[in-house]
Amino acid sequence: MKTERTPEEGIITRDSFPASRKIYVKGNLHDIQVPMREIYLEDTPLSMGKETNPPITVYDTSGPYTDSNVAIDLTKGLPRLRQSWIEGRGDVEKLSSFTSDYANQRLNNEKTAHLRYHHFEQPLRAKTGKNVTQMHYAKQGIITPEMEFIAIRENQRMELIEKMGKVHPGESFGASIPKVITPEFVRDEVARGRAVIPSNINHPESEPMIIGRNFLVKINANIGNSAVTSTIEEEVEKMVWATHWGTDTVMDLSTGKNIHETREWIIRNSPVPIGTVPIYQALEKVNGVPEDLTWEIFRDTLIEQAEQGVDYFTIHAGVLLRYIPLTANRLTGIVSRGGSIIAKWCLAHHKESFLYTHFEEICEIMKAYDVCFSLGDGLRPGSIADANDRAQFAELETLGELTKIAWKHDCQVMIEGPGHVPMQLIKENMDKQLDICHEAPFYTLGPLTTDIAPGYDHITSAIGAAMIGWFGTAMLCYVTPKEHLGLPNRKDVKDGVITYKIAAHAADLAKGHPGAYYRDNVLSKARFEFRWNDQFNLSLDPITAKEFHDETLPADNAKVAHFCSMCGPKFCSMKITQDVRDYAKAHGLDNEEDALTAGMEAKSKEFELAGGEIYIKQ
Amino acid sequence: MKTERTPEEGIITRDSFPASRKIYVKGNLHDIQVPMREIYLEDTPLSMGKETNPPITVYDTSGPYTDSNVAIDLTKGLPRLRQSWIEGRGDVEKLSSFTSDYANQRLNNEKTAHLRYHHFEQPLRAKTGKNVTQMHYAKQGIITPEMEFIAIRENQRMELIEKMGKVHPGESFGASIPKVITPEFVRDEVARGRAVIPSNINHPESEPMIIGRNFLVKINANIGNSAVTSTIEEEVEKMVWATHWGTDTVMDLSTGKNIHETREWIIRNSPVPIGTVPIYQALEKVNGVPEDLTWEIFRDTLIEQAEQGVDYFTIHAGVLLRYIPLTANRLTGIVSRGGSIIAKWCLAHHKESFLYTHFEEICEIMKAYDVCFSLGDGLRPGSIADANDRAQFAELETLGELTKIAWKHDCQVMIEGPGHVPMQLIKENMDKQLDICHEAPFYTLGPLTTDIAPGYDHITSAIGAAMIGWFGTAMLCYVTPKEHLGLPNRKDVKDGVITYKIAAHAADLAKGHPGAYYRDNVLSKARFEFRWNDQFNLSLDPITAKEFHDETLPADNAKVAHFCSMCGPKFCSMKITQDVRDYAKAHGLDNEEDALTAGMEAKSKEFELAGGEIYIKQ
Repeated sequence: MKTERTPEEGIITRDSFPASRKIYVKGNLHDIQVPMREIYLEDTPLSMGKETNPPITVYDTSGPYTDSNVAIDLTKGLPRLRQSWIEGRGDVEKLSSFTSDYANQRLNNEKTAHLRYHHFEQPLRAKTGKNVTQMHYAKQGIITPEMEFIAIRENQRMELIEKMGKVHPGESFGASIPKVITPEFVRDEVARGRAVIPSNINHPESEPMIIGRNFLVKINANIGNSAVTSTIEEEVEKMVWATHWGTDTVMDLSTGKNIHETREWIIRNSPVPIGTVPIYQALEKVNGVPEDLTWEIFRDTLIEQAEQGVDYFTIHAGVLLRYIPLTANRLTGIVSRGGSIIAKWCLAHHKESFLYTHFEEICEIMKAYDVCFSLGDGLRPGSIADANDRAQFAELETLGELTKIAWKHDCQVMIEGPGHVPMQLIKENMDKQLDICHEAPFYTLGPLTTDIAPGYDHITSAIGAAMIGWFGTAMLCYVTPKEHLGLPNRKDVKDGVITYKIAAHAADLAKGHPGAYYRDNVLSKARFEFRWNDQFNLSLDPITAKEFHDETLPADNAKVAHFCSMCGPKFCSMKITQDVRDYAKAHGLDNEEDALTAGMEAKSKEFELAGGEIYIKQ
Repeated sequence: MKTERTPEEGIITRDSFPASRKIYVKGNLHDIQVPMREIYLEDTPLSMGKETNPPITVYDTSGPYTDSNVAIDLTKGLPRLRQSWIEGRGDVEKLSSFTSDYANQRLNNEKTAHLRYHHFEQPLRAKTGKNVTQMHYAKQGIITPEMEFIAIRENQRMELIEKMGKVHPGESFGASIPKVITPEFVRDEVARGRAVIPSNINHPESEPMIIGRNFLVKINANIGNSAVTSTIEEEVEKMVWATHWGTDTVMDLSTGKNIHETREWIIRNSPVPIGTVPIYQALEKVNGVPEDLTWEIFRDTLIEQAEQGVDYFTIHAGVLLRYIPLTANRLTGIVSRGGSIIAKWCLAHHKESFLYTHFEEICEIMKAYDVCFSLGDGLRPGSIADANDRAQFAELETLGELTKIAWKHDCQVMIEGPGHVPMQLIKENMDKQLDICHEAPFYTLGPLTTDIAPGYDHITSAIGAAMIGWFGTAMLCYVTPKEHLGLPNRKDVKDGVITYKIAAHAADLAKGHPGAYYRDNVLSKARFEFRWNDQFNLSLDPITAKEFHDETLPADNAKVAHFCSMCGPKFCSMKITQDVRDYAKAHGLDNEEDALTAGMEAKSKEFELAGGEIYIKQ
């Protein structure tokens, strides 16, 4: 076991991306500044002069860490971006102390004083009778600063990128993505429950983002310690590292020691929403014995975490007593940690879980802080064999019913999904979820499309994730290479995030998202024009792209060479293509119609054969 | 540039897989021995006694290198497995010398004597008037030893694995995979042109394999030197290394120096079919100037390579003069090396290429050695923007016409496909190919589903590869992490192969291939029962799986622990599930029907609400 330690300055990733700078786009309705990353491009040399390639803007999850103008002090936390918006609504009150017994115990525990986060603000809570969820505002017709922030963020300055090449028509399976996202569209989607904005009033440091199938597909990265490994310092850096590479939310799944303190450090320094599975911590409080869990302990845990600022809670309230025996003949039983804890509790007490029986009380807590529900799939399949079985879909029915109840309280809801599913059964998951859960956003773990590649489950699952993202899943929970084998280290977290950015982006392209194609087109143009540095800088991971190129052609001048290591200097298809293009232009054949009807026609006729046979005798 | 060297003994991978041994299954029709890998499993401990887990057999591409009983001498080549089968058919003659001028020049070149392979057999060729293709035999109703070998190999001893768990119904898009592959089925598929057996009579060292959509999906790994990097020694080891991890064929795409000698070393030591793109070498012979290529040089190259034993040739005969201007307005023009060479030649000479005008003469060569056509997609898209355009599909039409001509000669044919394609446009590629090319096997490169992740294109393309494999593609050409950036090294080759094994296997599962599910099921059972070593040994890459587990829990006893590093010793969903299962059994609830109708019913009724609402007031 490692010695516990809190973060020190030096360990945090503060690199910026090459040829990039942070820009801020102002709002119209509200006094807001929306961060984006601008990437500068080199000129294209032409035979006469040059072509200027305008910079492009990309969605940026990395927060203030990549803005060299912002001073970061981990012990003080990030700037409290949303504080004035939240307080400005006049529906919250500042509490004089934490509500949770456990939170107060930890605050007064001498043994963990050295681990404690010291710059607490007093927690906020909705005033009595008030509801502070984004869904509540949306239903009242209010466009919050969060909503306008999101509209600007999703558009990525579309007006600048409209001419950046071909956009293929998407196949969107009923999703309807507008060409330009307006604040009103954001509001409407949230009001309908088709999208969520995880944004706890006690996490004002977070930059607003949206999860819904009419927006860019999002990804989540799991971090968290366990009983056998890792420190607070490592977990905070994992969070920063994961957002650096593009994760949209982070789940802290700690199950080890000091998880209260670990979470506090993470939230105070996180620019993205944080999710948790509160039952994990509740179980720690009863020494790992599921039968000893009570509603009171769980309730105190929810409030403890809500007042710290957790943005969404996974709640496995759909694991009903009568569903549990449906898993008895499965190949791999119940693989969800939360699901198995609840199942054990239900059987031991022979009654429905307190998550289910106290669901409306949970809603009361959620709406007092705007914690978003992520209704957990406790009975998801843990193997290809168990995919799409009765246990899984029975639970989904209950999640659909709970969604309606949560919406009655104006609580925001997402639905969690599998897991392990062979490709031909993936679409059924999406179709059933949309139908049964009334279009609440789906949030899936992969799914893995085969079980036979432990060590490569980021890849087995990226296949399923890209597909289900295309079919309509709003957020993809990453899987790292360590899945099934161990806890992810720094490299695994990065591999998982990049892999899932790929899956999410592939899904955006397939849906025909207008804000997705330009990056592919701009990168491909750079590739075709041998602008090597631009190709690297436009990629999801410029560092790795450049390193790989350096391996075979390390010299700086190779970065401007009109060839690459695959074919060598003489023999290059891209170079030849440029010759072809020049030729076509010179002969007036650079237009499709001309080419088919004009000069070539006579020539090609010589080669046409009677009767459709094309062989030419010479 | 590295100093050229030929392979020495020590460099070749001869590891066997853990807990595995090579077995050989005998034929019924022919005196053949089909190699497979058998993996031994540990017992499952039960409360009373134990359960024996029978060994499983997996498809094995690694050849004699993983049989510790076989002595390997790289300078003498592998055992000539098929020699007697080929000669036994009585339709070949042994030539007194090589037919190709270039082959003879190289044989007599003093400067390259040190690189030469010295254990040449005299080359074989069909006797005058004979046709030695597997398709020709198939059409005559002859079941060759190759065909029976393949039937046994594809079945993987299905009779032993029938009871190994659930097989989900596949969605096969018109493919019809029989439950048991018979030699007659193999013959029939080859006769119809729906499958190919690449098996040059001058590559008797190869173990027969089949490529067709009613069989297991296959993968190909590209290797080969270029003008700027790598040696013969490295390329031979890359080939062995790639087959070790599971590639079904290898393409030698060398474009650098000494490619004649490199290829000879590779073929003599390869247990899998070898493919090439002969135009690459032809171009070297004219110093890299496409316009200087002639039919005579190309013809000599084909014969040179056919007499060395190349099993399939990529021939870009579909690049017609009138299609070339269709690429002029593309974002990335022509990205196929072969395609761009031919395009340049066509434009320079303003006529159709010699590949097209001499196509029937090429067929005459192919059938004299049984070299399989792989009709190249010279106009495949090189970016998402260019996917599924007129240039691409125009060429496909011509490939369909050429397929008919090749079949007239009983030549075996596969069709190459893209490339870069967003997910929603993938199926159109497959549907058109099946239709236009009369169900000849499709062989695709990926496709990559986005352009924005150089350094991770094994993953961007595995998504597309798995999907198109499901839709009906018979062989998937791997893409390594170095795609677009550099030549793959040893690690890249392994990453590419494992990634594509995943894609191919995911496709087999989706098609409902009966021989695919058992490995997932057996591995998942091991995972669920905490048989860690079995989980590693059953995986595609046992070494990496074990290393990853060791990182967090290195002790040997952790390999028998009933917990893992993700959740720690107390808190484990799989452990809890076993408790649930025990409980269900003890209460007679381990049967779905019982569970739904018996004991639980009364209890669950308490929680049912009037009017479909499910909230319970307590």
